[in-house]
Amino acid sequence: MAELIGNLLIAQSGGPTSVINASVAGVILEAGRHECIEEIYGGLNGILGILNEDLVDLNDELQKSIEGLKYTPAAALSTCRYKLDFKKKPEKAAKDMDRLFEVFQAHNIRYFFYVGGNDSQDTAHKIHEEAVRRSYDMRVMGVPKTIDNDLPHTDHCPGYGSVVKYNCATVMEVGFDVGSMATDGGSCCIIEVMGRAAGWIAAGTVLAKQGNPANPPHIILLPEIPFQEEAFLKRVTETVAANKYCIVVCGEGVKNANGEEIGADKTSLDAFGHAVLAGAAEKLKEIVQGKLNLKTRTILLGYAQRAAGHFASATDAEEAAACGAAALRGATDGKSGFMPKIVRISSQPYKWNIELQPLVDVANVEHCVPRDWISEDGFLPNEKFIEYAAPLIVGEVKIPTENGLPKYVVLNKNPVEKKLPARV
Amino acid sequence: MAELIGNLLIAQSGGPTSVINASVAGVILEAGRHECIEEIYGGLNGILGILNEDLVDLNDELQKSIEGLKYTPAAALSTCRYKLDFKKKPEKAAKDMDRLFEVFQAHNIRYFFYVGGNDSQDTAHKIHEEAVRRSYDMRVMGVPKTIDNDLPHTDHCPGYGSVVKYNCATVMEVGFDVGSMATDGGSCCIIEVMGRAAGWIAAGTVLAKQGNPANPPHIILLPEIPFQEEAFLKRVTETVAANKYCIVVCGEGVKNANGEEIGADKTSLDAFGHAVLAGAAEKLKEIVQGKLNLKTRTILLGYAQRAAGHFASATDAEEAAACGAAALRGATDGKSGFMPKIVRISSQPYKWNIELQPLVDVANVEHCVPRDWISEDGFLPNEKFIEYAAPLIVGEVKIPTENGLPKYVVLNKNPVEKKLPARV
Repeated sequence: MAELIGNLLIAQSGGPTSVINASVAGVILEAGRHECIEEIYGGLNGILGILNEDLVDLNDELQKSIEGLKYTPAAALSTCRYKLDFKKKPEKAAKDMDRLFEVFQAHNIRYFFYVGGNDSQDTAHKIHEEAVRRSYDMRVMGVPKTIDNDLPHTDHCPGYGSVVKYNCATVMEVGFDVGSMATDGGSCCIIEVMGRAAGWIAAGTVLAKQGNPANPPHIILLPEIPFQEEAFLKRVTETVAANKYCIVVCGEGVKNANGEEIGADKTSLDAFGHAVLAGAAEKLKEIVQGKLNLKTRTILLGYAQRAAGHFASATDAEEAAACGAAALRGATDGKSGFMPKIVRISSQPYKWNIELQPLVDVANVEHCVPRDWISEDGFLPNEKFIEYAAPLIVGEVKIPTENGLPKYVVLNKNPVEKKLPARV
Repeated sequence: MAELIGNLLIAQSGGPTSVINASVAGVILEAGRHECIEEIYGGLNGILGILNEDLVDLNDELQKSIEGLKYTPAAALSTCRYKLDFKKKPEKAAKDMDRLFEVFQAHNIRYFFYVGGNDSQDTAHKIHEEAVRRSYDMRVMGVPKTIDNDLPHTDHCPGYGSVVKYNCATVMEVGFDVGSMATDGGSCCIIEVMGRAAGWIAAGTVLAKQGNPANPPHIILLPEIPFQEEAFLKRVTETVAANKYCIVVCGEGVKNANGEEIGADKTSLDAFGHAVLAGAAEKLKEIVQGKLNLKTRTILLGYAQRAAGHFASATDAEEAAACGAAALRGATDGKSGFMPKIVRISSQPYKWNIELQPLVDVANVEHCVPRDWISEDGFLPNEKFIEYAAPLIVGEVKIPTENGLPKYVVLNKNPVEKKLPARV
């Protein structure tokens, strides 16, 4: 295959994670080793910025800034929730696609990397197909990123290990706190974590038990298992009787037997048309306080969990960077329309490598926690899950601090001169 | 003064912090140097456990466990919210006091240390006065502890620096996240932190700005400043216009112009009769979404913030241990009815020492953020506050980890043989 010489463009999409920038660093640092890649550009705010020709010159960044991306959470190039929706808005999507290729051509983009989750892999796949259709020679690679861990084919997703590590530390610490306050009256604390359709994040907090059944979390409610109020209240009562306190972790998308999210606020939808959820823990608190007359508090970690670079997983950060580097190598090897996936070789000791999966297999498929990785009663992930998740949180990312706080990298983002008329 | 030989009893009370155990370690390790102290006992669940004669032998703990208390959050001896309420329940309080002294005498307790906040210092003060009244020779010392930072006389309270450090890291990281997601539609994130009457915890998050006005938090709402909806919404609008996003930190006890907490759930009271608050951020979200039609998310850190040993302040932990050691030395020097206080010598460079303050000056006095430490418009603490708070979050407590999670100490808690009939 003839070597493809040209410029590289990378952009980030969807909800940030603690290690999404590590993947960007992986791409950029590996790109520096390949002479076929000339300029290295970043697209601001994902494809939204590319549509607006808002590109920045990443060769103008300090080398230490690129290295610093390995421990800097959130999306250094900014992100978006913008979909090429050929089903619902075919004309707009077609117009957007035309504009994207105008920008690619204007800047001689021959390598395009899109770091994101399900929706973003779908976007990358469509861009790849369009490049083929237009015979525009460009290598398109998706780079996996999602705290939700719901991409198929990859053993797990970069971003997942770090959210689990932080959430586990939080559950453990809150458990110490609530346990040390517990007197005969008993108490309950409900910690709501992210996870819309898949319960991977909530399930991961089982690692906080460190193998001791008496340790928190005592109950984990997953979106995959319909919420059964009576059985739940019985389990809370039993736990308080045994320990004087009960720590419950719930995924934001926990559903009742009718498949309705118990904490859904149906009045608001995000840009992808998903219902905005924010109330599962509050709903459960109402139930526990109302039915059991048990002192109950809630914690809503929200965005804090996916941005907690100060306690990110070193394993996760390493894998995220490796996915970026593998995507780059795949592209320079002539591949397009692929996503690096993490392949587990063994759990103990933990060994993995990276292979490439066609994007067509990945886009818009959601991968949930297998039923046989969850206890029969549905209240805790079992040993199979623990064997899977345990290696992913190992190791601490070292972060520099200044004045007692993390010193994260902010890129200069020197703009690339625009070559096109403004988007209309 | 004749040397007082006998046993030591230490207990913890009120809400835990990341460094309340460091104070216990300070007392115990210093006690090991004083021959007048024979046995070292811990009272479980504060005075509630002492009333029940639930004492544990701290000389039976591993030395490394005592050292490990320096980085272990929450109350290793467990705590309580139990008040000797001579005003409302004088007969019960008098009976409790009799029982406490039966326990003290039965176990030859001559040194009593009570680690806690306002209410706990009041309890310590009453026990000291009672010992004097009974001519029971016992040295009673309060040891300051409260994330709320509302004890008078001491420059600040052990526990405060750590909650501020963790909350600042969270605000900074959430700011990176929300900022990197911000597109033209704008967005708002409201982070609710603890602080019932005093806004010290909320105010402390100003340090996350690191001196840059554009950095989050953009607005900090304190219980000390009546909430003005119109001015608040104007500021949110201006902030979003400038930055595309706005991070708001609010103390749980933010009040309207009538002095009513905007997020109060008046139906539930804690053991001290304070209203339970949990809804300020949700209330503000309603206002922002309703009036500005701006995408708004909330974070409720709850207990996580006061238990976050994984990102505790080394300065705070050192001061907490020093307060414990100073209390012990004060007691062996013959003092009773005092609390160690931190005296600031200079802010830059940060220098401090510890002196003793009579408990009578401390008990039940609340210390709020001075008005002239807050900007005229009330939305941000000013330079005076920043100079005060900045040194308190410096340094990271090193914690051992195991399987990727903090490895905190759990005491053996070998019970001391009971010598009294059960409490009736």
